[in-house]
Amino acid sequence: MVSGTDYGKVTSDIVRQLSEIVGEKNVLTGDDRMNYNKDEAPRAKTYLPDVVVKPGDTASVCRILKLAEDNHIPVTPRGAGTGLSGGAVPILGGISLSSERMKRILEVDEANFSATTEPGVTLVELCAAVEAKGLYYPLYPGEKLATIGGNVSTNAGGMRAVKYGVTRNFVLGLEAVLASGEVVRTGGKYFKCSTAYDLTQLLIGSEGTLAFVTEITVRLITPPGVREILFIPFRSLSDAIGCVPAILKAGILPVGLEFMEKDVIDMYEKYSGKKIPMHDYAAYLMVIIESENEDAFINISERIEDVATKNGAVDIFVAGSEAARANLLEAREKFHAVVTQNGLLDIADVVVPRSKVAEYVQKAKQIGRENGISIIAHGHAGDGNVHLEIMGDAATIDQKKEKETLIKLFEAGVGMGGTISGEHGIGYTKKGYLPLASSPEKLQLMRRIKLAFDPHNIMNPGKVV
Amino acid sequence: MVSGTDYGKVTSDIVRQLSEIVGEKNVLTGDDRMNYNKDEAPRAKTYLPDVVVKPGDTASVCRILKLAEDNHIPVTPRGAGTGLSGGAVPILGGISLSSERMKRILEVDEANFSATTEPGVTLVELCAAVEAKGLYYPLYPGEKLATIGGNVSTNAGGMRAVKYGVTRNFVLGLEAVLASGEVVRTGGKYFKCSTAYDLTQLLIGSEGTLAFVTEITVRLITPPGVREILFIPFRSLSDAIGCVPAILKAGILPVGLEFMEKDVIDMYEKYSGKKIPMHDYAAYLMVIIESENEDAFINISERIEDVATKNGAVDIFVAGSEAARANLLEAREKFHAVVTQNGLLDIADVVVPRSKVAEYVQKAKQIGRENGISIIAHGHAGDGNVHLEIMGDAATIDQKKEKETLIKLFEAGVGMGGTISGEHGIGYTKKGYLPLASSPEKLQLMRRIKLAFDPHNIMNPGKVV
Repeated sequence: MVSGTDYGKVTSDIVRQLSEIVGEKNVLTGDDRMNYNKDEAPRAKTYLPDVVVKPGDTASVCRILKLAEDNHIPVTPRGAGTGLSGGAVPILGGISLSSERMKRILEVDEANFSATTEPGVTLVELCAAVEAKGLYYPLYPGEKLATIGGNVSTNAGGMRAVKYGVTRNFVLGLEAVLASGEVVRTGGKYFKCSTAYDLTQLLIGSEGTLAFVTEITVRLITPPGVREILFIPFRSLSDAIGCVPAILKAGILPVGLEFMEKDVIDMYEKYSGKKIPMHDYAAYLMVIIESENEDAFINISERIEDVATKNGAVDIFVAGSEAARANLLEAREKFHAVVTQNGLLDIADVVVPRSKVAEYVQKAKQIGRENGISIIAHGHAGDGNVHLEIMGDAATIDQKKEKETLIKLFEAGVGMGGTISGEHGIGYTKKGYLPLASSPEKLQLMRRIKLAFDPHNIMNPGKVV
Repeated sequence: MVSGTDYGKVTSDIVRQLSEIVGEKNVLTGDDRMNYNKDEAPRAKTYLPDVVVKPGDTASVCRILKLAEDNHIPVTPRGAGTGLSGGAVPILGGISLSSERMKRILEVDEANFSATTEPGVTLVELCAAVEAKGLYYPLYPGEKLATIGGNVSTNAGGMRAVKYGVTRNFVLGLEAVLASGEVVRTGGKYFKCSTAYDLTQLLIGSEGTLAFVTEITVRLITPPGVREILFIPFRSLSDAIGCVPAILKAGILPVGLEFMEKDVIDMYEKYSGKKIPMHDYAAYLMVIIESENEDAFINISERIEDVATKNGAVDIFVAGSEAARANLLEAREKFHAVVTQNGLLDIADVVVPRSKVAEYVQKAKQIGRENGISIIAHGHAGDGNVHLEIMGDAATIDQKKEKETLIKLFEAGVGMGGTISGEHGIGYTKKGYLPLASSPEKLQLMRRIKLAFDPHNIMNPGKVV
């Protein structure tokens, strides 16, 4: 964003006013602010907010934002801090506005298949509440401790996107507070709407740069009868990825279709001390299936086996037990922790058209080799979202080379008709790369939209656009 | 929109420049402009554009808009003119910008399950092209001759929304031209994206007030093996609608769930000369089903029969043949034509949370009775979208009373947590009612967003916001 580096200071009088709004114990100005100085972006610098404020309701959020607006103080919205692009990091100081006290699940509406929550509710809490009523929130961005507010901010995707899509597809309505302190309500318990601009969708994925979301209504569905995982080894990555369109073209719609190579499996086994079945092959597809009942599952798995065998699969492993499923899912979910221990320097999550995944992974590895940088690629074969871990020694890495490599990875993805982030978001760590995916005209348009919401640029400044 | 009634005139010099851009035969200034002076909104006034312009490509659209912008001439985008809210009607004269020559289907991508078209392609043309490649575009807004550009502009919904959602859920990317003549490309052949603001979603449903859409990429799926319709009579409307949550809660997901009352059936039979099965009951559910194969259909229909019988259904009719299905679907689709012949004064398509449909329909009829105005209600029970036809004699109707009735219908819907249009859009015929569904703050925000796209308010002025 262009405007305003001349932000106001968080004076003792501002702190006093914030304390009046939310109570003294919900305003942090000491060392405890350290818990708000970073997120999970690898190797990112820390930035201490001048003050952490924890509102408990929408009215407090309005007053806080009005105060910040009047005094031109930067406000950085924060959920659980599990983001990977620095979106929740207060890079200009000011106020870290935490949703941690806004944790009420306001309603699970069984007749309308919807749930309404405050933004600080975690994914695991939401899922438990709706399952208790016999309903299901099927999205699974992987990080259970992330907040729903954070999921909305980044349009979180995850491993069940092939069938269910992403957060955007399950949010029905929002309440959000603008920088001015004005409250805007969007959408409702309906998904058919042709009543002026869809502000719900515009707010989703805007990473707190347009407004602070105070209430979220999501769509629910009925739960599947059977969940199962197939683990399918192949002799090469291109065999594995080449099998994906064949599965989908056969009219089979798994919940998720993940790919991984042997290096990922090896690293996980070493990290966890656990063994992954059939761990000696070059590449794998993990097919996550949800079906109505056991018969339907058998039908689907037989058809997948048929298609996979015709397309180079060496074998098929059906998890078959909760423990085996958990082991396989963990290998996928814990991978971020695994690479973090093994010298993760940076992470990207380029998305390309599904048919380009194999070509893109090959290209990414070639880019790595040409630049002397080790790259691990794995991710969502069914939806084209490729996670790229840039590995190395932080002390000795040639940072210019590293940055050039990242640019080449993004350019290659965009060149194949993709874009630079499928689910992690832009935050500030990827902001410099956004022009690789957006024309100058489009960037200017987005900046004008930003100013329509937030004319003085106090909402998460320095992020996204 | 507030600004600018001082629009520029379409001079002979402007016409000459337009002719240079698109060729003389694609610029209309004579009586043939009459075909562009209205849409299908009932009883709406006609407005003649000063000039109709038919670009054949994006570059021409850029030049036309730049010329309009430089001369501050209103531009009204137009597809097939099948809208119901006057969105395509040039109420301030100026340029009617028709997509009728932009009819190329640019690609059906079998590997990525996507199709890319120009905006003037009709729904029936798109469906034929993708079916020829063994794929399926499942949305069915009812009007087959509508253009895809028009579907995008109004976020068209229709009868298959219960399972598939609305246009918004199937558009992956757009190319659009701003008032400045700048081209913006959004999205692509992927649905997972967390790369700054989602302009695709913002453009969808904006009814041509933000930009002129020149290219559309939609998501496709594999076709169902079996399509079938169940027609279920009930002794009362509340029985019929009360059955809907029970069907959905049983984990059954039909493609569509329509409700209608006897008055609708009677009127259709008289109009068409055809008979509807079991036409003597008070109310009906039409359950549209798509399933993978015959076995799956039998399973679903047995379960629906079981649930429906327990919830007041008198009988169940399975269409069973293409002719019977067509007859039932026609009764639903042709209803707009039927009521138009029978004294349709106005139409609204309020959406309420699904659980409120029965209560809302009762309330709507009560409002009609109290105001001495006849109202027919029918529509989408599965998604809460209720179509309200206001019937009467245009010559004798008390117009003040009619408007008051409409306001009460909208207020009742909004009061139940709904909004004023589920799929028809706001255009100019419903623009005056938008404040019933949007707070002043939200309206102002939408107007600022409009100005971020179109600072001189030339794009479809007088519409939506």
